[in-house]
Amino acid sequence: MKLHDCQMAPNPRRARIFLAEKGLDVEMVEHSILGGETCAAEYLKINPWGTVPALELDDGTLIREAPAIFRFVEAMHPEPNLLGNNPKEAAEIEAWERFSEFNGIGAIGEYFRNQTEGLAGRGLPGPTKLDLIPALVERGAARAGYFYQQLNEQLGKTEYVGSNRYSIADITAHCCVDFANAVSLGIPEDCPSVARWYKAVSGRASAGA
Amino acid sequence: MKLHDCQMAPNPRRARIFLAEKGLDVEMVEHSILGGETCAAEYLKINPWGTVPALELDDGTLIREAPAIFRFVEAMHPEPNLLGNNPKEAAEIEAWERFSEFNGIGAIGEYFRNQTEGLAGRGLPGPTKLDLIPALVERGAARAGYFYQQLNEQLGKTEYVGSNRYSIADITAHCCVDFANAVSLGIPEDCPSVARWYKAVSGRASAGA
Repeated sequence: MKLHDCQMAPNPRRARIFLAEKGLDVEMVEHSILGGETCAAEYLKINPWGTVPALELDDGTLIREAPAIFRFVEAMHPEPNLLGNNPKEAAEIEAWERFSEFNGIGAIGEYFRNQTEGLAGRGLPGPTKLDLIPALVERGAARAGYFYQQLNEQLGKTEYVGSNRYSIADITAHCCVDFANAVSLGIPEDCPSVARWYKAVSGRASAGA
Repeated sequence: MKLHDCQMAPNPRRARIFLAEKGLDVEMVEHSILGGETCAAEYLKINPWGTVPALELDDGTLIREAPAIFRFVEAMHPEPNLLGNNPKEAAEIEAWERFSEFNGIGAIGEYFRNQTEGLAGRGLPGPTKLDLIPALVERGAARAGYFYQQLNEQLGKTEYVGSNRYSIADITAHCCVDFANAVSLGIPEDCPSVARWYKAVSGRASAGA
């Protein structure tokens, strides 16, 4: 199988880290978002939604959307468990994974995207032509503040984001914070629990993926 | 268990339909979004994220985020299967369920929310104060057009949204189209496959939930 990827983007990176945590060595196929490749005809033939990551199986099946990839890979390769060992734990992990996606990556994405000239006409991922909206830069920064505050409160109570052990919730939140760092929205000084956790997840071998 | 709900909103409705399809009779606790109740101190004590649906178990555990609720309930009550019978089917259903959430409910939500005076200062669900952004009304309508077009193409190939049988992907897409209808973004005339499918899902007993 191979992963349709974009090295610089946080969303496919969470799939790369997930695969690394599973110990799987998967071929990566690079499609530059900033270079317009994910919206070009060639990639739209593979995935009409124009999104990465997408996992292509050896039989040609294409699995789109990062959480669908996580669940499929976890079903095929259950260890180490990253999605939850029982229904209640899985629910709490999924809730925080989604929180980190929407309120973390989503917020920082709108902050970054709407001030990036190279993405003119591409207000959201995918092939639809959408103007950038400058007001979303400010909104994204405000939302990032809320994300950090909620994450800090949670990490004052649990060692990792979705439970007391490392899970997919940590992977998504980690990719989010590294994305935020890259666009100067790094961890606020009043979030020491986030800083403590960030040091731990950044030290894992998978962080280089 | 009980479901923290808002009758008029598409997101909790998908949990209500899911529970109805499972044949479960669950107590509903109403929190009006337009009335500000989901962001009021009383509800934030239950769910600091200020979102509905949230499923409260008899032991006090709170399950947040609709897909986490779906997965928890499916684990407890496997029949009828609504999330997929095998990893590949589950992945395709999850991809379309998410597509319908982000590009459907998300699009129509930004179209509706950003022109609704009663939601001033509440640009997104949750307690963060965020200005409405008029440019998102137009963007939401454009995105809804893309959602319908992609859905129509898919439903020209499969009987239901995520596969050839009814699943959670249909529930989310159905709640999206009913929400769109309510805000005058109904099914475009050039989407006959969506109209065919919509008639089928609307005729199910669970549609009244």
